[in-house]
Amino acid sequence: MRVPDLASLAPLDVAARAPRLRARLDRDGLDALLVSDLTNIRYLTGFTGSAALLLVTGDGLLFVTDGRYEHQSAAELAAAGVDAIIEITGTAQRDVFAAAVERAGIDRLGLEAESVTWAAQRRYAETWFPGRTLVATAGLVEGLREIKDDGEIDRIAAASAVADAALAEVRPLLLDGPAERELGLALDTAMRRLGAADVSFETIVASGPNGALPHHRPGTRPITEGDLVVLDFGALVDGYHSDMTRTVMVGEPTPTQARMYEVVAEAQAAGVAAVRAGVDARDVDAACREVIAAAGWADAFNHGTGHGVGLDIHEDPRVGAGSTARLADRCVVTVEPGVYLPDHGGVRIEDTVVVTADGCRTVTLTHKNAAV
Amino acid sequence: MRVPDLASLAPLDVAARAPRLRARLDRDGLDALLVSDLTNIRYLTGFTGSAALLLVTGDGLLFVTDGRYEHQSAAELAAAGVDAIIEITGTAQRDVFAAAVERAGIDRLGLEAESVTWAAQRRYAETWFPGRTLVATAGLVEGLREIKDDGEIDRIAAASAVADAALAEVRPLLLDGPAERELGLALDTAMRRLGAADVSFETIVASGPNGALPHHRPGTRPITEGDLVVLDFGALVDGYHSDMTRTVMVGEPTPTQARMYEVVAEAQAAGVAAVRAGVDARDVDAACREVIAAAGWADAFNHGTGHGVGLDIHEDPRVGAGSTARLADRCVVTVEPGVYLPDHGGVRIEDTVVVTADGCRTVTLTHKNAAV
Repeated sequence: MRVPDLASLAPLDVAARAPRLRARLDRDGLDALLVSDLTNIRYLTGFTGSAALLLVTGDGLLFVTDGRYEHQSAAELAAAGVDAIIEITGTAQRDVFAAAVERAGIDRLGLEAESVTWAAQRRYAETWFPGRTLVATAGLVEGLREIKDDGEIDRIAAASAVADAALAEVRPLLLDGPAERELGLALDTAMRRLGAADVSFETIVASGPNGALPHHRPGTRPITEGDLVVLDFGALVDGYHSDMTRTVMVGEPTPTQARMYEVVAEAQAAGVAAVRAGVDARDVDAACREVIAAAGWADAFNHGTGHGVGLDIHEDPRVGAGSTARLADRCVVTVEPGVYLPDHGGVRIEDTVVVTADGCRTVTLTHKNAAV
Repeated sequence: MRVPDLASLAPLDVAARAPRLRARLDRDGLDALLVSDLTNIRYLTGFTGSAALLLVTGDGLLFVTDGRYEHQSAAELAAAGVDAIIEITGTAQRDVFAAAVERAGIDRLGLEAESVTWAAQRRYAETWFPGRTLVATAGLVEGLREIKDDGEIDRIAAASAVADAALAEVRPLLLDGPAERELGLALDTAMRRLGAADVSFETIVASGPNGALPHHRPGTRPITEGDLVVLDFGALVDGYHSDMTRTVMVGEPTPTQARMYEVVAEAQAAGVAAVRAGVDARDVDAACREVIAAAGWADAFNHGTGHGVGLDIHEDPRVGAGSTARLADRCVVTVEPGVYLPDHGGVRIEDTVVVTADGCRTVTLTHKNAAV
């Protein structure tokens, strides 16, 4: 399935986001937030360029970029329905922001401490905003981003559909003995030909013994009869990612390989069945882990169960044994348990699901038959 | 030309780098540097994973990563001939580093202020290293990285050769009227098929009026008779980037288009001719700019002339009117003037060159005939 015309998808409700952010600023006693993370700026304004800063005050937005993005920023913010003061400046950024902070009488100014560099914070403290109180914030915009609107869900689903179609197209090649990287290139090319703007991350093709290495990069090893092949990949559509893993058996599985597949499939289904708005993320992790532990492979599932997906491929909420997050309606998360045994290979199965009031909707729709 | 076997290239002299860094620490009165930038860690150790911290003290290296990279880090540091204490730890990083700093009696500890986040700096100041003096550093490792060793130059040249071969292969497609993004995908696929680990950056294919937009992303516009087409792309080989721009004329140029091409080609040649060890980078910029200004298009060359290329696609030294850098022997820089006219399109021509004592060696070898 090709990426549909974006105009046929639900619109992104960009203009509704800054007001929600303001409620968080109020809650935390902040007069304003200087947003420097470009993904957060995109989320709040629709701007997709590579250089901008955004000041969110109690009653306005000040968006500053440079001359390269004069036309693009005006067009993108207007298309998103975002009402902001747009300033185009190269070297006078300091003056623009210092004046705005002065004018608005801002004292407590939040900085995104997890993304702003120490060098930038020093400039802000010493030169841009002397006398103001700079407050280290964490996750203010990222917290809003956990809950997706219809437009976001449509884009993640469209990206997932592209990945599904690409795998269907490429799957028969597994029987031709391609090198891992050849198969990865075929998947990537198929996704882009189907309309993905890019791949979501470096595609994982991990065959045979490589499947047991959680961070294997596709290499020159030819895919061979008797291999389990872990395929973990995604597509990017209008800024939104997809994420899916399937494991394919080339030839007949050994009894251990068959059992690995069966256990992981059961664990993954148990995880998905545990997803529902209001559930603790760690309970989804536990649902997967229990099945694998019961099969005697607890130590062979050595990573977390999942993560949020959206404008970033890995975002909140995290789904792991140590998670403190509670899943909310309209969160989008992955469920991806695995079993990795050096002598047999690896099996991982991953879906991306949209959390709903009474369960979840799976957007990665490729079947789960192990055979090519 | 395919990527050659890496073993046939000059080796990377990784082990020589930390001693050179120590000389800089001494110069700046630092007892140690905590390296957090992953590209800098790769440069100093050979490690290619996605999570690590490196403490460089007066007489040792402490490399810390997590369990995912236990085997990979040991193998990569050994292959690079780097003698470091390797610690594998998940949550106990603080303890490992705090103990090392205590043991070595470090007071003045440098942090890479341009990459370390404010949140991390606060953790280091309050929890990891209380009582020590944290010093904001800038460009300590990046400065070393400006001067390439033989292995680095070989890799940049190999990546450039792959890009040359990919363009030669794809060039005839320009006559078939492909959409910009189809041509971009063909270039990307060719580079990867020829052995590139990845593309160096999002390939630019900017045709007709889009050529006049410096930050155009390849879109659905079909390439058409009468178009100037700007192609800016690169390949990644063993961590090293290439960067080349060619502009191709589809069909017969108008007199203005022919003149644009002629002027940019002359400007670019003048820039390359100005490159030599000991020259100020801004003089290379001026050499390009003079030619374009003499043609009456000074305002239509609205970006810098070039940048360093290496483990990052854009690194020091910068080549622009405001540059303060002096080009040194073994720097690798681009020379890429352009002229952008909304009614005629854009022309940019870019080579990557290795600075030598008496000039430079160009590693991007595709011819500069405008015709397809």
